[in-house]
Amino acid sequence: MSKPFKLAVVQCKGNALDAGRFETLTRLIREAAAKGGQTILLPELVLHDYFCIEENQAHFDLAHTLESDASKSLQALAKELGVTLVFPFFEKRSAGIYQNSAAVFEADGSIAGLYRKMHIPHDPGFNEKYYFTPGDLGFKSIATKHGNLGVLICWDQWFPEGARLTALQGADVLLYPTAIGWDDSESGSVSPDEAKALEARHLDAWITIQRSHAIANGLFVAAANRVGREGHLRFWGNSFIAGPGGEILARMDSETEGVILADVDPARVEAERRTWPFLRDRRIDAYQGMLHRSGN
Amino acid sequence: MSKPFKLAVVQCKGNALDAGRFETLTRLIREAAAKGGQTILLPELVLHDYFCIEENQAHFDLAHTLESDASKSLQALAKELGVTLVFPFFEKRSAGIYQNSAAVFEADGSIAGLYRKMHIPHDPGFNEKYYFTPGDLGFKSIATKHGNLGVLICWDQWFPEGARLTALQGADVLLYPTAIGWDDSESGSVSPDEAKALEARHLDAWITIQRSHAIANGLFVAAANRVGREGHLRFWGNSFIAGPGGEILARMDSETEGVILADVDPARVEAERRTWPFLRDRRIDAYQGMLHRSGN
Repeated sequence: MSKPFKLAVVQCKGNALDAGRFETLTRLIREAAAKGGQTILLPELVLHDYFCIEENQAHFDLAHTLESDASKSLQALAKELGVTLVFPFFEKRSAGIYQNSAAVFEADGSIAGLYRKMHIPHDPGFNEKYYFTPGDLGFKSIATKHGNLGVLICWDQWFPEGARLTALQGADVLLYPTAIGWDDSESGSVSPDEAKALEARHLDAWITIQRSHAIANGLFVAAANRVGREGHLRFWGNSFIAGPGGEILARMDSETEGVILADVDPARVEAERRTWPFLRDRRIDAYQGMLHRSGN
Repeated sequence: MSKPFKLAVVQCKGNALDAGRFETLTRLIREAAAKGGQTILLPELVLHDYFCIEENQAHFDLAHTLESDASKSLQALAKELGVTLVFPFFEKRSAGIYQNSAAVFEADGSIAGLYRKMHIPHDPGFNEKYYFTPGDLGFKSIATKHGNLGVLICWDQWFPEGARLTALQGADVLLYPTAIGWDDSESGSVSPDEAKALEARHLDAWITIQRSHAIANGLFVAAANRVGREGHLRFWGNSFIAGPGGEILARMDSETEGVILADVDPARVEAERRTWPFLRDRRIDAYQGMLHRSGN
């Protein structure tokens, strides 16, 4: 069993490639470490504004490798602070293959692992299928000095399959870098009250589905979301950490930049799974349909 | 697309084979129909007290077929009222094969379908693996006059796989007959305050995991639980109906016998899935691990 560690989640605006914003990002990472954070989670595509709001070929120029200046700088910061850092980035893999990825920088300066977003959304304002080749590394648990980390990204959070497969790989915590928000261009056809109720329902659904992964798999779950308005999108923050019973351990509001922390103890994972032994009772003989699109 | 219908959920104590209790059960079914209920859901093993609280060979005598007096009586009642009735029962399939099942009685007096509980729990006070042969009919949607019904039973509700597979079969609503409660024999080692907090957390987890199935699959979900104390078990009621966004449409308390109702409109299912198109984006090429116990 891996050792307990303190998990920190950073909530912030995007666009960290801007010099002033990069300073804010590194300040928040330092704050997370100063508060005892040993593994630090950042929001999805944190270096950029959410360019997927539109389809523009020029935005592919934003993609980069782990040799980029910003990447190297954050990798060095992780080593300096002695923390494990989950760094989501727009990966340039080759000409024509761009991915929505997250690297795990180890506390000793090495790279512990890489995850490439498996489930790619595409809705008005979230044109991700245009930019991102679907991940091909599968669902993994990445062993680090500070925990067995199940890294997934944003849209993955709506899929119980991704959570289950990552849990079965041995993760003690699912980590979701995220960029999700309300879309003002959607609310034209309903009254302000109805729009407000719908916004509350969507935020609640987002938290509920992730808490359900904690419950179904008996492990910790954390999401780091961005905040701030970008065009017609208002990123809704509410970054949180939940325990293996689905209980909220820490949560931010919908606007503030900052850091939340919670202890992740693998012994809690094992205790929860003894009380609620779902993994014992899965009907793997009857799950073949999970590999199909539909029953018809 | 099937037509909209009104779903009614009956919450009650068990032991309906007792003459007085059977009268209460039929009164509640009549009340559900009188209030407009077209499909009516009953709690798990409603004819019996929760005999799985202990392991006793004599309890196998309780098992019966759909030819039993009580079963025939409820089937006739469904026809009389013109309702579709989901009737959970302790099925005697053959000598040595006993199952935790649910029949769907059609409004015309026929039998629309049968489900046999796939995931079988076993914990102190819930000795179900002793009594119940695991189901072998798989996960199904049962087409009825009043809706495409995805019948599952109790422990199934903790498994996203069962919900997903049933949804993929075309169900507009997942129906969970249930017998779940708090176990007083568990709370010995903690303070009264801690025990109370743990009870609240477990109830909340039970509701959350089922709401998550509504969210992940964009369909309605309902649970009919029993109430009342039986030995060291206090069945926690809180039967509810949730909409395709996971929103609670109706919910009972932890003690009262009664009926709740909500409209189930398949058009809402389709609308929700267009807004949140998760079924479009499943990575069926990467889900092979769902058929395995573990990644190691």
